[in-house]
Amino acid sequence: MQEHDNSLNITVYKLSEEASYTKLFHSYREGETLPSGKALREVVELCRSILFPGYFGKARINAETLRYHIGVHVETLHTQLSRQIYAGLCFSDTHCESCTDRSRNEKAAQLAETFIATLPAMRDTLATDAEATYRNDPAAQSPAEVIICYPGFQAIVNYRIAHELYKLGIPFIPRMIAEMAHSDTGIDIHPGAVIGDHFSIDHGTGTVIGETSVIGNHVRIFQGVSLAGEKLPPDENGNTVRGVTRHPILEDYVTVYSNATLIGPIRIGRGATVCGNVWVTSDIPAGQMVKQWTK
Amino acid sequence: MQEHDNSLNITVYKLSEEASYTKLFHSYREGETLPSGKALREVVELCRSILFPGYFGKARINAETLRYHIGVHVETLHTQLSRQIYAGLCFSDTHCESCTDRSRNEKAAQLAETFIATLPAMRDTLATDAEATYRNDPAAQSPAEVIICYPGFQAIVNYRIAHELYKLGIPFIPRMIAEMAHSDTGIDIHPGAVIGDHFSIDHGTGTVIGETSVIGNHVRIFQGVSLAGEKLPPDENGNTVRGVTRHPILEDYVTVYSNATLIGPIRIGRGATVCGNVWVTSDIPAGQMVKQWTK
Amino acid sequence: MQEHDNSLNITVYKLSEEASYTKLFHSYREGETLPSGKALREVVELCRSILFPGYFGKARINAETLRYHIGVHVETLHTQLSRQIYAGLCFSDTHCESCTDRSRNEKAAQLAETFIATLPAMRDTLATDAEATYRNDPAAQSPAEVIICYPGFQAIVNYRIAHELYKLGIPFIPRMIAEMAHSDTGIDIHPGAVIGDHFSIDHGTGTVIGETSVIGNHVRIFQGVSLAGEKLPPDENGNTVRGVTRHPILEDYVTVYSNATLIGPIRIGRGATVCGNVWVTSDIPAGQMVKQWTK
Amino acid sequence: MQEHDNSLNITVYKLSEEASYTKLFHSYREGETLPSGKALREVVELCRSILFPGYFGKARINAETLRYHIGVHVETLHTQLSRQIYAGLCFSDTHCESCTDRSRNEKAAQLAETFIATLPAMRDTLATDAEATYRNDPAAQSPAEVIICYPGFQAIVNYRIAHELYKLGIPFIPRMIAEMAHSDTGIDIHPGAVIGDHFSIDHGTGTVIGETSVIGNHVRIFQGVSLAGEKLPPDENGNTVRGVTRHPILEDYVTVYSNATLIGPIRIGRGATVCGNVWVTSDIPAGQMVKQWTK
Amino acid sequence: MQEHDNSLNITVYKLSEEASYTKLFHSYREGETLPSGKALREVVELCRSILFPGYFGKARINAETLRYHIGVHVETLHTQLSRQIYAGLCFSDTHCESCTDRSRNEKAAQLAETFIATLPAMRDTLATDAEATYRNDPAAQSPAEVIICYPGFQAIVNYRIAHELYKLGIPFIPRMIAEMAHSDTGIDIHPGAVIGDHFSIDHGTGTVIGETSVIGNHVRIFQGVSLAGEKLPPDENGNTVRGVTRHPILEDYVTVYSNATLIGPIRIGRGATVCGNVWVTSDIPAGQMVKQWTK
Amino acid sequence: MQEHDNSLNITVYKLSEEASYTKLFHSYREGETLPSGKALREVVELCRSILFPGYFGKARINAETLRYHIGVHVETLHTQLSRQIYAGLCFSDTHCESCTDRSRNEKAAQLAETFIATLPAMRDTLATDAEATYRNDPAAQSPAEVIICYPGFQAIVNYRIAHELYKLGIPFIPRMIAEMAHSDTGIDIHPGAVIGDHFSIDHGTGTVIGETSVIGNHVRIFQGVSLAGEKLPPDENGNTVRGVTRHPILEDYVTVYSNATLIGPIRIGRGATVCGNVWVTSDIPAGQMVKQWTK
Repeated sequence: MQEHDNSLNITVYKLSEEASYTKLFHSYREGETLPSGKALREVVELCRSILFPGYFGKARINAETLRYHIGVHVETLHTQLSRQIYAGLCFSDTHCESCTDRSRNEKAAQLAETFIATLPAMRDTLATDAEATYRNDPAAQSPAEVIICYPGFQAIVNYRIAHELYKLGIPFIPRMIAEMAHSDTGIDIHPGAVIGDHFSIDHGTGTVIGETSVIGNHVRIFQGVSLAGEKLPPDENGNTVRGVTRHPILEDYVTVYSNATLIGPIRIGRGATVCGNVWVTSDIPAGQMVKQWTK
Repeated sequence: MQEHDNSLNITVYKLSEEASYTKLFHSYREGETLPSGKALREVVELCRSILFPGYFGKARINAETLRYHIGVHVETLHTQLSRQIYAGLCFSDTHCESCTDRSRNEKAAQLAETFIATLPAMRDTLATDAEATYRNDPAAQSPAEVIICYPGFQAIVNYRIAHELYKLGIPFIPRMIAEMAHSDTGIDIHPGAVIGDHFSIDHGTGTVIGETSVIGNHVRIFQGVSLAGEKLPPDENGNTVRGVTRHPILEDYVTVYSNATLIGPIRIGRGATVCGNVWVTSDIPAGQMVKQWTK
Repeated sequence: MQEHDNSLNITVYKLSEEASYTKLFHSYREGETLPSGKALREVVELCRSILFPGYFGKARINAETLRYHIGVHVETLHTQLSRQIYAGLCFSDTHCESCTDRSRNEKAAQLAETFIATLPAMRDTLATDAEATYRNDPAAQSPAEVIICYPGFQAIVNYRIAHELYKLGIPFIPRMIAEMAHSDTGIDIHPGAVIGDHFSIDHGTGTVIGETSVIGNHVRIFQGVSLAGEKLPPDENGNTVRGVTRHPILEDYVTVYSNATLIGPIRIGRGATVCGNVWVTSDIPAGQMVKQWTK
Repeated sequence: MQEHDNSLNITVYKLSEEASYTKLFHSYREGETLPSGKALREVVELCRSILFPGYFGKARINAETLRYHIGVHVETLHTQLSRQIYAGLCFSDTHCESCTDRSRNEKAAQLAETFIATLPAMRDTLATDAEATYRNDPAAQSPAEVIICYPGFQAIVNYRIAHELYKLGIPFIPRMIAEMAHSDTGIDIHPGAVIGDHFSIDHGTGTVIGETSVIGNHVRIFQGVSLAGEKLPPDENGNTVRGVTRHPILEDYVTVYSNATLIGPIRIGRGATVCGNVWVTSDIPAGQMVKQWTK
Repeated sequence: MQEHDNSLNITVYKLSEEASYTKLFHSYREGETLPSGKALREVVELCRSILFPGYFGKARINAETLRYHIGVHVETLHTQLSRQIYAGLCFSDTHCESCTDRSRNEKAAQLAETFIATLPAMRDTLATDAEATYRNDPAAQSPAEVIICYPGFQAIVNYRIAHELYKLGIPFIPRMIAEMAHSDTGIDIHPGAVIGDHFSIDHGTGTVIGETSVIGNHVRIFQGVSLAGEKLPPDENGNTVRGVTRHPILEDYVTVYSNATLIGPIRIGRGATVCGNVWVTSDIPAGQMVKQWTK
Repeated sequence: MQEHDNSLNITVYKLSEEASYTKLFHSYREGETLPSGKALREVVELCRSILFPGYFGKARINAETLRYHIGVHVETLHTQLSRQIYAGLCFSDTHCESCTDRSRNEKAAQLAETFIATLPAMRDTLATDAEATYRNDPAAQSPAEVIICYPGFQAIVNYRIAHELYKLGIPFIPRMIAEMAHSDTGIDIHPGAVIGDHFSIDHGTGTVIGETSVIGNHVRIFQGVSLAGEKLPPDENGNTVRGVTRHPILEDYVTVYSNATLIGPIRIGRGATVCGNVWVTSDIPAGQMVKQWTK
């Protein structure tokens, strides 16, 4: 090893030069931490344990002791989520001089509380998603199989959690939760998308639902489907324009089959069907079907 | 924190109301456990250690001591797999009053034993898959690289394990093993599919092979390929029809290139080639090639 | 259990027969170890901690103590990477009688040192990739979000690490590092591909960039894109031909939209655009756009 | 390595001969497990979390949510303790043919429930022990320090848990819990000893309190004290006589200083003091002090 | 299980009654945490890595890279120790209304910094302890063996760390560090004791050195030795008197053999020897030897 | 934090000065590692699993599959112990220029093999120790309890392992194994002591058996007993004399009660009894009993 030390020391020197690291360096203030992927995985696990009692979490649960378990899980969720939201606030807002640690800590605790208050309604919506997934897939043997095994349902759970956090204006955390599901399932739903009830995604690998997509109720999507954004011209200063509506709208009861690509702020009418491998860039009237030309 | 407790307690109360959790609650009987994803990962690792001695598992192995290692691995596999099968049986069968714990335990041990007896033949088939994958990919440097690094081969190993368990009628467990590979590789092979020897999948992300697909020998598939099910009308009561043949049949020596979608119970004849990004809904004769129209 | 032992013992016996395991057995020499996926994950984490100080790694870092941290990380990286390279050399080269353990150990340490010396330049290139990704995606809120959350950027980091190791002729290790990113992100970039600066991949699931692909600067790619190899005829002995150029060349400023497939050693000219779901098998002139025919 | 295999194989052969292992082999029946030291550590931790809310256990606790936490801890304790009691019953009772698994499982659950019902009274007694320890040690800064840091108090907690289990006739488990404290603190209190309230042990390393010792209230003991058993002659068959009273009785308000040894079924009267390093084999009247002869 | 729930619920109810837990409950304010035994073990490990480079800690270290390692260790130590000191301050001071979180955090960081500044001198003193231990034990094979294996030396290291923290007036933390060594080695040195250089303890199990002991240089102690406190009468209110000098003074070059007990504020003169198993309650002149009367 | 950095950096500087660390620094050569306490704990666990099949180790074992388990354990033990012996050889022998890594590796593997060959005889002796412990303690309920729970037996197991390694001249490793038992049980048996069969230690905390002690068969010892070395005068150069016989000899059937101290190379005759708390410095004839003078 000793013979390599000189070369290694030269590299250490180069990598420690300010000119080298300045573009890729993040500088902290006292007491700040990074949002943690590992902690957010636990946050999602806690949400799952609360939403689906008996399916996730280690302990045996029965109706009598259910409240004890939910009580402990909710309290733990509040503590851990507050910490991650705080980390996200610090990370995105490194120049706010007026906001002290204490006020940010309090803001994070308040946001976590507001999020937790959405869980009962979220559970109701997820019950419709589980039911729709089971009804739509002839290979499913029970709703329980959907809740435990289906990647599409897993991605929808993460999306619904991330979306509520996104609506509260929390930075970073929603995207990290969405990317967890993306990594595990290959399904990439942006937390900003708006999605109705009875939603199902089958197989799902490669599916992308962009930031400003709007999806109605009873919509069904397959693997490899893209709801993609229109490319926008830069603004007068040459900067990327952000936050503009640029993704498709799918009305109720739409079905999109595998590997179809829908681009731009187009409208797919109620009950329309988009067949597999099609490239769609304009509106489709209600009830119609679009197909690729094949042999 | 204390200031948030009131709000949190209201949420705990709502989430503990029977009307809220009833649709998403799983209730257990004494002594039952959920099938465990983590335990099933160990089951698959044990199978790999047994099937590919020297490639997986921690210990240094040579021919003299091979039997000791396989003996210990097989015994451990029997114990752990029996436990997971038992959990699967309990989970799927919550209303069987006549079947006692003891009989289910014994049934689980018997099923695990039967599964283990298929490992020698499974090893033979997997040797043909490894060989085919190596021969088909000019980027592969050795068969060892295929066994260690190739996601396509990894997904095939999980499929062959899951398929043997599926044939024994074991609920949940096969699907969970298939979804593990799906999550790791993006390749989604339903345990019910029937697949011959010398099978290879290259790259593989987004590939879907549905429940009633039938694939011959020497078949070769690429990323993003879907062997998808035909949509079936509901039965007279409006319920989803399950278990009917509804996926493609691929005869020997068929090749399907990336992102092609084959739908319904069609037959792709011996030696046919389906090019990339094609949408196929009808039979293809033996030896033919199907292409997308492109510029 | 005891009643199952006889059956299990028969299976152990079969699986320990030389005829059974011979095709799938790897035999070691004294002191050799397998390359370890877990250790390589740590190697990649160490590279990330060195390249992006303040974003990855546990410790709070400031400019004063940066050199201590980089010094320790570089030394640890050298030790761990040397060990993995050594394992890779042993694994690929089981028949080299003349090369001793000591010479292979020294060779591994030398290769690790050479790799580490490429990190400063790699950091410069990755800064251009992060910047391009941020500029190209209207949904990105900051470059920090790209570095922490974006699977496309994660896959590019692994690729740039793997590519430097590939150029040094190290077996197995580059492929394993590329497959890690493939598993986590669904993006499959072969370490042999040559890729310029300001490179970005959005969403990315299902994207494949083959071994002999050549990609210029400022290229932008979406999910499900394949840069695939032409199928080559076997050589005169019926063996697969390996190492020949057989993948596309993308010149500077090319954009390829989702699910497009480009096959063979074709040339996509400077600034050309390939729309989604297209199947391309021939050259495209500079500045042109190719589309699928749709309704 | 290979050169060593022959020698190793000979050793394996010798160690697998029945004549070699027969004296030190434990044979199981289907489904039985060994009592687990690790699981019992968790059992003791759970007891501590229940008995001393706010001192042990990870979560932040306040009066409002205390019941949730205790509810979850009690339920988890019941599950884990039942399993360990079951293992203890199996282990000690390998020849009971009439007792089925089911009846033993039910018996274990019943015993765990009975034990848990003793926790409220145990908490009351431990409060007197903590108070006495604090009052007796001028170096203690607060009762909290006693509960968190004092090995003497830790050993008393384990003893009081073990003693309740011992009274229920549960084999092995009480002894294992006592030996945990012995290993951690050097204090060896047999679960069979009977000990009153306001009990304190200072420093404690080397203290031994034998199986049939009886200790009153407000007794105070130091390090290295032995309450030892009289040596009994074997019975007419030459076997060791077990279960006979053979250890000292200490009445209320007795103090025994460091390294004193008290042997046999002697009585130390109310308020007596035994100074350090003394060897006592006969009764001591109430209120007296015994000293070693020193320079 | 269900049949046990009623009984368990009654116990939960009893244990949640305020009257039951009030004596053994610790109540927190927002953001406070308990001092953590696990974190303090890491603090001690970090100190060891800094004090004895090359003996503890995972990485290979050489003179060139020593500063990198010490730099990272010192920074990590500062962060972790600050957190534990903060927890100790909160825990001991639950009624201080005027001291805010921020001031306590800053105080903790300042105390940690002050402690770290004592490490260079502490290393010098520990070098004399290691040397004395090696010279005094004919069974020691090298000073390295002392540093790695000797429980006496381990206890002295923890003592010297704890003593510096004790001198800074930090509550709880010093005692917890001392009790760690007590549990691991059976040697109980109170952090308040004052101990000179060239100190050695051989074997050590059962040795107790009380809070106000004063020990000179070149002192040598064996297992089971107690430097114990005189029993003090309570104050006029019947409360225990705390903080008064009540333990022995050992001058330079004193030796105390195994299981000797020295009680009260007595003075053992320079070079005196106390033989094993003796009970000493009065001064011993310089150079004298005290023995037990034996056969 | 930043305000503390200057002070911390000064401390880092001081601690990195050669004059500071030179006495407590261990310098390595390429490829060397420290003996690892954690790895040696696993070595002892492996020995226990081999010696007491069915008592330790996770897997369910029966007579049919015993050989598989012992085979795997023996092989793993050989690998791990060889590595630790190698580390011990490097550590103690930093100046041997002629011995290469390869020769030391081979020597370590040979020593591990020789040690393993002693396990069958060690098992026979340990069976006599377990039997004697059970017979001597009226509180023991079964020999199984002795093997699982008794600290005295645990210390004897570690001693017998350490002693065989000591006889092979292996540095450091035997002492580390003995100190593990010392830490867990408070019993400190030097690996150099020679101890016959049917040996038992009851309770045991504080017991010390020195390096050159010789103990016959059927000897029984209690807690706090010291077999201590005579203090030797330094040699003509003032150095400590090492390796000379200086501890007691206990003949067959000797009993030593708690806290007795026996010093120097004295002989305790066959069947003699030493009562508690006695200080013995001269021979005791066969069959005699020695007592302390007490009230």
